[in-house]
Amino acid sequence: MLMDDMGWGDLGINGQPSKETPNLDNMAKEGTLFTDFYSANPLCSPSRAALLTGRLPIRNGFYTSNYHGHNGYTPQHIVGGIPDHEILVSELLSSAGYTNKLIGKWHLGQQEQYLPLKHGFHEWFGSPNCHFGPYDDKTTPNIPVYNNTEMVGRYYEEFAIESHKYLSNMTQYYIQEALDFIERMERNEKPFFLYWAPDATHSPVYSSPMFRGASRRGPYGDAVMELDYGVGVIIQKLKQLGLDKNTLVLFSSDNGAAMIGSAFENGSNGPFLCGKQTTFEGGIREPTIAWGPGFVQQGQVSHQVGSLMDWFATALDLASIAVPKDRIIDGVSLLPVLNGAAEFDRPIFHYRGNALFAVRFGLHKAHYWTWTNSWEEYNTGITFCRGEYLANVTTHEQVNRTLDPVVFQLGRDPGEKHPMKSSTSEYKDAVMTMNSIVEKHMETLKPGQPQFDWCDDSVMNWAPAGCEKLNKCLPIPKSNLQKCVWPH
Amino acid sequence: MLMDDMGWGDLGINGQPSKETPNLDNMAKEGTLFTDFYSANPLCSPSRAALLTGRLPIRNGFYTSNYHGHNGYTPQHIVGGIPDHEILVSELLSSAGYTNKLIGKWHLGQQEQYLPLKHGFHEWFGSPNCHFGPYDDKTTPNIPVYNNTEMVGRYYEEFAIESHKYLSNMTQYYIQEALDFIERMERNEKPFFLYWAPDATHSPVYSSPMFRGASRRGPYGDAVMELDYGVGVIIQKLKQLGLDKNTLVLFSSDNGAAMIGSAFENGSNGPFLCGKQTTFEGGIREPTIAWGPGFVQQGQVSHQVGSLMDWFATALDLASIAVPKDRIIDGVSLLPVLNGAAEFDRPIFHYRGNALFAVRFGLHKAHYWTWTNSWEEYNTGITFCRGEYLANVTTHEQVNRTLDPVVFQLGRDPGEKHPMKSSTSEYKDAVMTMNSIVEKHMETLKPGQPQFDWCDDSVMNWAPAGCEKLNKCLPIPKSNLQKCVWPH
Ligand SMILES: [Ca+2]
Ligand SMILES: [Ca+2]
Repeated sequence: MLMDDMGWGDLGINGQPSKETPNLDNMAKEGTLFTDFYSANPLCSPSRAALLTGRLPIRNGFYTSNYHGHNGYTPQHIVGGIPDHEILVSELLSSAGYTNKLIGKWHLGQQEQYLPLKHGFHEWFGSPNCHFGPYDDKTTPNIPVYNNTEMVGRYYEEFAIESHKYLSNMTQYYIQEALDFIERMERNEKPFFLYWAPDATHSPVYSSPMFRGASRRGPYGDAVMELDYGVGVIIQKLKQLGLDKNTLVLFSSDNGAAMIGSAFENGSNGPFLCGKQTTFEGGIREPTIAWGPGFVQQGQVSHQVGSLMDWFATALDLASIAVPKDRIIDGVSLLPVLNGAAEFDRPIFHYRGNALFAVRFGLHKAHYWTWTNSWEEYNTGITFCRGEYLANVTTHEQVNRTLDPVVFQLGRDPGEKHPMKSSTSEYKDAVMTMNSIVEKHMETLKPGQPQFDWCDDSVMNWAPAGCEKLNKCLPIPKSNLQKCVWPH
Repeated sequence: MLMDDMGWGDLGINGQPSKETPNLDNMAKEGTLFTDFYSANPLCSPSRAALLTGRLPIRNGFYTSNYHGHNGYTPQHIVGGIPDHEILVSELLSSAGYTNKLIGKWHLGQQEQYLPLKHGFHEWFGSPNCHFGPYDDKTTPNIPVYNNTEMVGRYYEEFAIESHKYLSNMTQYYIQEALDFIERMERNEKPFFLYWAPDATHSPVYSSPMFRGASRRGPYGDAVMELDYGVGVIIQKLKQLGLDKNTLVLFSSDNGAAMIGSAFENGSNGPFLCGKQTTFEGGIREPTIAWGPGFVQQGQVSHQVGSLMDWFATALDLASIAVPKDRIIDGVSLLPVLNGAAEFDRPIFHYRGNALFAVRFGLHKAHYWTWTNSWEEYNTGITFCRGEYLANVTTHEQVNRTLDPVVFQLGRDPGEKHPMKSSTSEYKDAVMTMNSIVEKHMETLKPGQPQFDWCDDSVMNWAPAGCEKLNKCLPIPKSNLQKCVWPH
């Protein structure tokens, strides 16, 4: 269960004052709550590609080389997508006899060769891109919703989103699809992998009329409540069908809550610094729960430093499938930790685009580059660190701190408010350790072919497969291949 | 149970990533967790005076008129203290047959006439002032620790605090005192009021050797863990003695976590803006739990807007004692809410010193004055809003916004990051409502005699009662009465 732009602080159990998540809070009590769990990137597409490949975006190609340290993702004019030579967890599980379904947002490329059914999924209900819009279907097509290999409509058309009212029924569809799939798999006694990826907490946020107005927080909180409801009924279904004994349920989010929008649309990163787009904790620390009475210790709180990429290795471990040996896999299996084994130290590398910005190891985090966004952008009112400012840390220039990293001790300073003094032995020791970790990492790093370098209006969702049946094919403009523009 | 400088975000259940409070988290599950509960002031003494009198500091005199909107408290050279004509909850409970004990910090004045046993308490173990020090006993005496009417030693002398190691056994003494008192009251079948006010989370923070190093957060987290342990054993004792059926236990803190110190000594205000000293949410929103199977609904989360002053009225309600009719009482009984009755709207007035800075009503909060601290002080490195900055909000001048209040909607924006646009009808309606609430408040306001205006070295703890028995009397210098200096 991968949420979209949901922040660490959005769960009741993580301190959201409005307490909108009774089902998730209960899931944590019945399972393991992770406090120190990270996305693989502060943006959707790279984070999702890393989740499914177990590899950093710099390896699987989900980055841009057009600029130093700029974020990229897969808007519908992106030419790239998930390369065929990447091995997805869905492909490995498929080979082992699992039936795999994606429900919700894909975001690994919208061209036909990149779609989920070409990459190990047997079923898909959802869309290849974000639900931005509405578009005019002339200069820009509305985003299609697929059922398996064919589109069944478009957002703002067959699949209504009233973004000015924060209304849509998509989450209800995604919940129903999940329940149907689980029931079907149980009837057929088939092992399954469900990748449930609703996007209601991504701007434009939405909820269905039943939930709209239900929370104290407004539209964003309403969306959280509906997703929490979905988590609740899915887990209830597993219990009803007796699948709770042999199913592992993982809940997390693809990046930190956005801070760019209005108070109606932004989630909460709790006590953490900044948000989506940044490599500060608010951009990458994720609300994370593991559940499954057969595999997960009940009521455990784990401070294990984890990454979305670990779910790749954990799923393979659970299914007794060997991890690919011909490439570097960044994720590690957390199955022992779920079972109550001791936590272990391991580094997590936080990239922004093609640049290693920060490393976490133990309780320390070293920032080798600091940046939020450019002065130019900031001066137009766009901020990724709303209400937050730390001199020489939340910088509006890219500052290279390789020779004097900014180090925080996240145990006593989870909010990254107290840069450690460089004169202390703790700082010196931490930097020495980090530098050697980084050196080792760099020695073996072979960046993948960057997928976010080229954009072209002709690759947009003009005429997805199935459009002809619906009479919804749009004329494809001529190619205008150009380097993608990534402002931050 | 009143903590000192503990922040809203310091409880596991309020999202502290280090999860140091299993007993408090459990207390909340067995009782009612308040999400929107306020101290009566962003500083110790005024907040505590308000708790015990049910009245705002501006009424009971716990403020200074030396400056506009400056905080004051009761350092040991303060001349003032709790006036005799104020009625404390301890006095009313005493008249009704309760035996009352204060364990921990008093902070309502250290001159003899102000001490707890002159104001309704029958027993006291603790100190009149903060545990700052060590002092030299020449220019400044170390703070005495009292047992009832007489001192039994001084901090840093008989009652060791190794502040450079963050070590002291005081919390263990306070826990033992509580257990002894409760057992004694139960044996004698006496109704009792225990005001448990340990101060280990106030700088210099400390814990006993058993807890030192136990938390991921360092000294501050260790102190939290020891206090949580104390809460646990006190509640366990009530259960063992069968007192859980007819005892109401309230847990809160006197003001928000301080942000002024090092990462070793600062607590967490979770997602809230700024900290101690300010009237932003981080300065005044408190971690609050009510427990007592006889009176409190189990597992309730209440968004009731509450104040420490409400415990005055709640205690009286519980004991069937009439609230004083000859004066304005700001607190209201929350007994019905504890029992599960519907939440109700009521304003909370947030003063800084002698000035009304902000008002909360419903989900809105209007700031009539904004200020953090002066540029002069800020430029020396002192900040109450570490890592936070919001233009025209976290100001370093006192800005009068009476004509255009800064309004936040705390439901969708608990962190006070999105000042509402003054062009919206929501803003206009909120301001109209707030202004009329303020107008009504001001009509009836008769400020009490300010207690924090005068300071004098001769009133310090040179020769507290009992000093002669211990041979610990120090020579009293001659009076040097002067206006107190309050920098912020
Ligand atoms: Ca996202
Ligand atoms: Ca305090």
